[in-house]
Amino acid sequence: MSEFNVKELLSDGKVLQEVIVKGWVRTFRSNRFIALNDGSTLHNIQCVVDFENFDEQTLKRITTGASLEIKGTLVESQGKGQKVEIQVSQLEILGDSDPEEYPIQPKKHSLEFLREKAHLRLRTNTFGAVMRVRSVLSYAVHKYFQENGFVYANTPIITGSDAEGAGEMFRVSTLDPKNTPLTEEGEVDYGADFFGKETNLTVSGQLEAETFAMSLGKTYTFGPTFRAENSNTSRHLAEFWMIEPEVAFLDLNGNMDLAEDFIKSVLKHVLEHCQDDLAFLEKRLLDEEKTKPQNERSEMSLIEKLRFVVDNQFKRVSYTEAIDILKQSKPNKKKKFQYVIEDWGADLQSEHERYLVEKHFKCPVILFDYPADIKAFYMRLNEDEKTVRAMDILFPGIGEIVGGSQREERYDVLLKKIQELDIDEEELWWYLDLRKFGTAVHSGFGLGFERLVQFTTGMTNIRDVIPFPRTPQSAEF
Amino acid sequence: MSEFNVKELLSDGKVLQEVIVKGWVRTFRSNRFIALNDGSTLHNIQCVVDFENFDEQTLKRITTGASLEIKGTLVESQGKGQKVEIQVSQLEILGDSDPEEYPIQPKKHSLEFLREKAHLRLRTNTFGAVMRVRSVLSYAVHKYFQENGFVYANTPIITGSDAEGAGEMFRVSTLDPKNTPLTEEGEVDYGADFFGKETNLTVSGQLEAETFAMSLGKTYTFGPTFRAENSNTSRHLAEFWMIEPEVAFLDLNGNMDLAEDFIKSVLKHVLEHCQDDLAFLEKRLLDEEKTKPQNERSEMSLIEKLRFVVDNQFKRVSYTEAIDILKQSKPNKKKKFQYVIEDWGADLQSEHERYLVEKHFKCPVILFDYPADIKAFYMRLNEDEKTVRAMDILFPGIGEIVGGSQREERYDVLLKKIQELDIDEEELWWYLDLRKFGTAVHSGFGLGFERLVQFTTGMTNIRDVIPFPRTPQSAEF
Repeated sequence: MSEFNVKELLSDGKVLQEVIVKGWVRTFRSNRFIALNDGSTLHNIQCVVDFENFDEQTLKRITTGASLEIKGTLVESQGKGQKVEIQVSQLEILGDSDPEEYPIQPKKHSLEFLREKAHLRLRTNTFGAVMRVRSVLSYAVHKYFQENGFVYANTPIITGSDAEGAGEMFRVSTLDPKNTPLTEEGEVDYGADFFGKETNLTVSGQLEAETFAMSLGKTYTFGPTFRAENSNTSRHLAEFWMIEPEVAFLDLNGNMDLAEDFIKSVLKHVLEHCQDDLAFLEKRLLDEEKTKPQNERSEMSLIEKLRFVVDNQFKRVSYTEAIDILKQSKPNKKKKFQYVIEDWGADLQSEHERYLVEKHFKCPVILFDYPADIKAFYMRLNEDEKTVRAMDILFPGIGEIVGGSQREERYDVLLKKIQELDIDEEELWWYLDLRKFGTAVHSGFGLGFERLVQFTTGMTNIRDVIPFPRTPQSAEF
Repeated sequence: MSEFNVKELLSDGKVLQEVIVKGWVRTFRSNRFIALNDGSTLHNIQCVVDFENFDEQTLKRITTGASLEIKGTLVESQGKGQKVEIQVSQLEILGDSDPEEYPIQPKKHSLEFLREKAHLRLRTNTFGAVMRVRSVLSYAVHKYFQENGFVYANTPIITGSDAEGAGEMFRVSTLDPKNTPLTEEGEVDYGADFFGKETNLTVSGQLEAETFAMSLGKTYTFGPTFRAENSNTSRHLAEFWMIEPEVAFLDLNGNMDLAEDFIKSVLKHVLEHCQDDLAFLEKRLLDEEKTKPQNERSEMSLIEKLRFVVDNQFKRVSYTEAIDILKQSKPNKKKKFQYVIEDWGADLQSEHERYLVEKHFKCPVILFDYPADIKAFYMRLNEDEKTVRAMDILFPGIGEIVGGSQREERYDVLLKKIQELDIDEEELWWYLDLRKFGTAVHSGFGLGFERLVQFTTGMTNIRDVIPFPRTPQSAEF
């Protein structure tokens, strides 16, 4: 008698074989039908108990959440909904689950309720599916880059530099907060701290990834990044995972090609490898949208949306063109936008991005050549000296999913910019060095992994696509 | 005319083809032979310049570290050392590299010197090879787990729990350190901090990974972990990457099988996919060892050592047996050990582990069933009530590379232990819940990724196998 997981039994279990399987009870119907799940798949295996053969005490303990070891014969199922089931010969309760106390009952729980039970929510179909898809998506990311000659770079999480400029940072310290040592000038004496200087959690691995690109050619990071911003929204996390490829000798056009090819490739991988989970999530989303008014529902189902992205070219539009489109748009003319677009140079808000993607182009859009003033210091200045070779990719329902650029490779231009913006030039000595010794055109982008998981799974709140979300006032588990 | 990288040209470039290649000059000999490297491989492509065809000013700028774009014809090489080379027809200097300033000259630099230039050290053969091997090894880790049905879990980096007990932690905060808000009792008012409570950087994702195992069956983490310990050694980092698989319904024996199979599988992958880099690192290690006295040199070369691990069973020895062996050993009898082993219950020091692995068994060793008193609270107590189902895997030259255990799955036993050790039980409510609702035997282990990279590359200092090492008093870049 061999042990199998549920996925193996359902996909290629041999009928009449004696099998062992272990898992958790999802439901127990009619004192006879156990739906057993072990997380290897969305689906349960039905285990049929002949109740005359088991004592009542045991049967009573078969409750939702209990863990069981089941021995029996795999047989063709008489009922509908499954091809095979197990005729149970022996049953052992490994771990009880008191129905009075177990919070995950076989009924619909709200996502908010489940967030409070993040340690048990993985036992629901929704979160099991989301986490399996997330995992396969992670693997697709590594697979894409590794098969295309990129070197994985583990850039530092604790950084001594606060020049990245992408957002507010968390301080990392071992100083006693009650008795912070001060210098004679009354400043915090970071010399006494663990690293002998002030350190923070990284907001981006890009600058360090550039050192990889400028030596190994192609690189990518895939690791946690942090923002200490008090944004309590369904789109923001204080801790999230970011993917940041960086490539030497690549210009902005090549960068757009790379980003588009990358996104299509990983979505295709998931479409091929997560069919059951995606089908479930599609249905879940459909049910969720039924509660919304007709005009707020998506035109496409989840899988249609994924296929649409895979099969269609992203629309590439310059910032200047986008501003023209927006100025001519109905919501702008009728002042329906909260921020009415008046002049070239305006920073695009989420409402504008959504209009472009969801109303105007109805497909993923790559905006490029943004005004220099609204973008980061390291972006390559165009010959017009007004715009930089930046690009953002905007997705329906998600908004910005990728932000990238060609990097300023000219030492003098970069130095001037750093000085203009009053960034501490000494902190960036090594970053400047890359422009001093064998500089070259290079480009890269950052993709917030959770946004991609949201898009892929159709989950509307970003807290539901990461196992234990970190947000203002919340660091449970 | 198409663009290729160096690896493509050397492995399957077609002779007489017109090619473009971009990279950095490693050396320029006799005003004629450029060794160009682009990081795609350890090897350089030789580019032959007919100096009569290029002006002297350009030739002068072909210096180590400069970046070039080269056009030319791929031809069979006349010289030895390479099959093909490029007969250069056009050459463009993309970025100069002033030989007076560029620190990475074509000569032997010490590893210590290169650590100060971590942003440029990737341009050396050694660090290029180490980082490519590290990257392939990372991928092998994901590949192994994904192909074996494990779900990748991104456990939190910022943790609100300090109950993990694996070591000293870094505090994460946005409070003003100069004016730390205090409560009426004079304690730090963490209610005013970003997360509304005290938070730290994680020392292990294990406890959270257990929530995955107890719902999805098989899981693994692979992410950064932190220790705020003042250990300035060649074996410790304040920030390092850890791999932590966790499996439901798996006991300690299964855990040992998994760890052994996993390590062998990833090393095999690297042996197959990193032949050039390993051959180089093997030679580097040989050269390094030549400077040591005969008796301190390894008996096996780097690749022999890797093959040895792949091809041989790890020796499984109980702690009790190990103590007997150590008590009988010459260094113990002659009191050559710094810590002489006298009684059962003694914690093994690195000197003892090395003796067992390097002198006695001469192979990787799995020690198991340790005294409960010297191991963590969550380990499964054996029936003898003296030992726990812990295991450590010891590697020659590295020492402990894996630490794992079967986990205590019995609610009452675990609770008692938590109380005995005075761990805050309320912080672990969710961890205890896993034992309350459908508990089951489960096991897992942690493997410090940098230790594995050290073993695979033969680098003796852990700071040389991570891009930007974080150690006491050092968080540069």
